[in-house]
Amino acid sequence: MTRSLHGPVGDGSQIAAYAWLSRVFEPGHPALWAYIEQYGAVEVATQIRHDDAPQVLTRAAGCRALVDQAMTDLEQSAAQGIRLVTPTSDEWPIAAVRTMARAAAAGGERVVPPLALWVKGESLANLLPRAVAIVGARAASAYGAYVAREIAGGCAHRDYTIISGGAFGIDHAAHSAAIAAQGGAIAVLAGGIDQLYPRANAALLRQVGQQGALVSEFPLGSENFKHRFLIRNRLVAGLALGMVVVEAGVRSGARATAARCRDLGLPLMAVPGPVTSASSTGCLELLREEGTIAVGTAAHVLEAVGMIGNDLAAPRRGSANPIDALDPQKARILDAVPLRGSRTIEEIAVAAAAEIPLTLATLSELELRGFVDCSLGVWRRRTASK
Amino acid sequence: MTRSLHGPVGDGSQIAAYAWLSRVFEPGHPALWAYIEQYGAVEVATQIRHDDAPQVLTRAAGCRALVDQAMTDLEQSAAQGIRLVTPTSDEWPIAAVRTMARAAAAGGERVVPPLALWVKGESLANLLPRAVAIVGARAASAYGAYVAREIAGGCAHRDYTIISGGAFGIDHAAHSAAIAAQGGAIAVLAGGIDQLYPRANAALLRQVGQQGALVSEFPLGSENFKHRFLIRNRLVAGLALGMVVVEAGVRSGARATAARCRDLGLPLMAVPGPVTSASSTGCLELLREEGTIAVGTAAHVLEAVGMIGNDLAAPRRGSANPIDALDPQKARILDAVPLRGSRTIEEIAVAAAAEIPLTLATLSELELRGFVDCSLGVWRRRTASK
Repeated sequence: MTRSLHGPVGDGSQIAAYAWLSRVFEPGHPALWAYIEQYGAVEVATQIRHDDAPQVLTRAAGCRALVDQAMTDLEQSAAQGIRLVTPTSDEWPIAAVRTMARAAAAGGERVVPPLALWVKGESLANLLPRAVAIVGARAASAYGAYVAREIAGGCAHRDYTIISGGAFGIDHAAHSAAIAAQGGAIAVLAGGIDQLYPRANAALLRQVGQQGALVSEFPLGSENFKHRFLIRNRLVAGLALGMVVVEAGVRSGARATAARCRDLGLPLMAVPGPVTSASSTGCLELLREEGTIAVGTAAHVLEAVGMIGNDLAAPRRGSANPIDALDPQKARILDAVPLRGSRTIEEIAVAAAAEIPLTLATLSELELRGFVDCSLGVWRRRTASK
Repeated sequence: MTRSLHGPVGDGSQIAAYAWLSRVFEPGHPALWAYIEQYGAVEVATQIRHDDAPQVLTRAAGCRALVDQAMTDLEQSAAQGIRLVTPTSDEWPIAAVRTMARAAAAGGERVVPPLALWVKGESLANLLPRAVAIVGARAASAYGAYVAREIAGGCAHRDYTIISGGAFGIDHAAHSAAIAAQGGAIAVLAGGIDQLYPRANAALLRQVGQQGALVSEFPLGSENFKHRFLIRNRLVAGLALGMVVVEAGVRSGARATAARCRDLGLPLMAVPGPVTSASSTGCLELLREEGTIAVGTAAHVLEAVGMIGNDLAAPRRGSANPIDALDPQKARILDAVPLRGSRTIEEIAVAAAAEIPLTLATLSELELRGFVDCSLGVWRRRTASK
C-alpha cells in the first residue's frame, strides 16, 4: 500500500494529531496507546501516515491513514460547539485516565485510556471530580426506572454528576433525573456527537449537552456501530468514581460495563430487585460476586464513592475555592506542593512538617480530588485546581 | 431462703437432672452452661437444689429450685410423644452444639448451647446433618412468601431439612413448602411443645411434628413469652448449616436471628427484594454488611451451605448407608477411626496410609457430616453413624 508523504498531519499541532488519530483508529487500541505514551501523538501520527510505525499500527490504520481531514474535523466540530479535549487541556480527566492507564498497564486490554475526547457542553473539570455512573437495562421495569431516578436525582442533588450512556430505560431515567434536579450529567456516546442515538432520546441528549456534557471518542459523523458500545462502556466506567447497576439481564450490556468497573478497581454497586424479575437477574448475579455493594438510595451510593474528608454537601459549581474547604493539615501539605516545578514526597513532608505516611495519604487524596499530580515519583500542583 | 434437702432431683438420673434444669432455668444461661460443662448435669442440679452452687446460679434458679417435677415432666411429655434429647442421646445435635459452644466460649453470650432439647417427631440425627434455616418477616409480602416457598421447596427437594420458627409470614411459607415437598422440617418453638404458637399455625406445626420435628428448650406448659423468642432464635441459627433471610424489616426478629447466625460464623444469606419495599429493607441492610450472600434460588442456598465432597442429591432418609456414598479415600480414613476407643490424627493417618493434611481435612468433613467426633485431641466414631 502506498501512502502520501506530505509532512505531518493537519497543521502539525498536537490537537490536529489527536483529531487525525481519532478519525483513523477505533478507540481503545492497546498498542496505539502504549506507542503514543512513548512517542507522543504528533510523532506517532506522522509515523503512521508515512508508514514508519510498527506494522500492528499501520495495519490497524489501513486505508484510513491516507485521508487527512483533521483540520476540517476540528473546524466543523467547533462550528457545532464541539471541542477536542486532549491530555494538554485544562479539562483533561487526568485522574480517570490515570486509573485506566494503571489497569491497562496491568493487563486490562479492555480499559485502555482514551487518547482524546470530543466534548460538547460544560468543562469536564467541573463535572468529573464528583461523578457517578448509573447504568442498566434498556428494557427497564417501572421499578428499575423509579429507583434509577431516585438515586440519580439524589446524587445530582448532592452535586454529583451522573454519567450514563444515553440509552433507553435506566440510562434515560438517570440522565433525565439529573437534568430535572438541575444537576450535572454526562452522556458518553458510541458515535459522533452529531449522531445522537437512539434518536428518540435526542431531545434529552441535547439537554445533557447544554446542562452537562456530551462526550465521545468518535469524530463527527461516526455511526453508532454495535462494537462501539462495548468500547464506549469502558469510558462510562472510567470517567466515574463508581458505578451503579440498577437493572440488568443476565447477559447484558450493563453487565459488560460493570465488568469494566471491576477491571478498573472502582466501586461497583448494584440495586437489589425481585429475584423473580428477569430485569434484576443481572443485579442478583453481580451481588453474588465478591465486592459488589448493594445500594438502594443515593446516600448508599455516595457512601461508597465518597472520598475521605470530602464534604459531600459542598457545591459542585460556584465561586467558592475548593482549597478553602480543606482542613488545615491537608491545606499545609497542599501548600508544600509547588505551583511550578515539583517535589519528592520527602521534600513535601519536610516543608509541611508532617509525617511521611500522613503526607502520602493526604497527597493520594489530593490527587483523587484533582489538586495534585504525581509522575516519575515527584508531585506537582494541577493548574486546573488553582 | 430455705430449700428442701431430699437428695438428687428426680430419680437421680442424668435425664431427670436435665428435665429439672429445663424447668428451673431459662435457656441460654452462660454461667449455667459453663458450670455444667465442668461438673455435669446431675451434680449441678443437686448443688442448686441444695443451695450449694455459685450464687449466680442459685439466684437465677430462685424459688423454682424448690419444686421438683422432673419425673412428672418426663412422664407427661412421653405421654404426648415428646422426648428429652440430652448430650448422651444418639440424636444429640453434636455438630451444632459444638459450633455454639465455640462461639460461646469466644464470648458469644447470646449463642450459649442448649442443655437439652424437648423433641417431638423424627430423630434429629436424620434431620440435622442437612438443614437450612429460613426466616423472615411475619408481615411478609406476596413476593416474600413466594420466594420463601420456592427456596424451601427446592431445598427440601434436595433432601435438606427446613428449620424455622413457626411464625406467620416467611416462617409459615418455608415450613409449609417443606411439608408440601415431602421434605424434612423443624420448628423451633419459644414455649412448650404443647403450647403451639401462634394458634393459627397449630395445624401446620402439628404436621411439622409428624413429618419432621418440633423442638423446644422449654418444658410442657411453658408460655411463649416475648423474651423467649430471642432466646429461641439462637437455636434456629445454631441447628442449621446456614440461614436465609427472605424478608425483614429494619428492626425485626429476623435481623436479630441473622445476628446470631453471624455470631456463630455460619453462612448468612439474604434474598434481595425491591429497595422500595419496607419488608425488604432489612435484607438490603444485611446485603450491605460484609459477608452476606445474596441468594435467589435453592441452588444458590445449597451452594453456600454445601459441604465439600457432599453429594447434594444424596437421600436424606432411607435405607442406603451414607458411608457407602463416601469416595474410597474418605472411606479409608473413616475406616481408620475406631468404632470403640479413639485414635490420634497421626495414628489415623498411618492406618489409612494418608498424608496428615488430607487426613485432617477429611476428618473435619466427616465430623461436619456426623460420622466422627473429636475431643481432647483424639477421634472416635459417632454411634449414630453406624
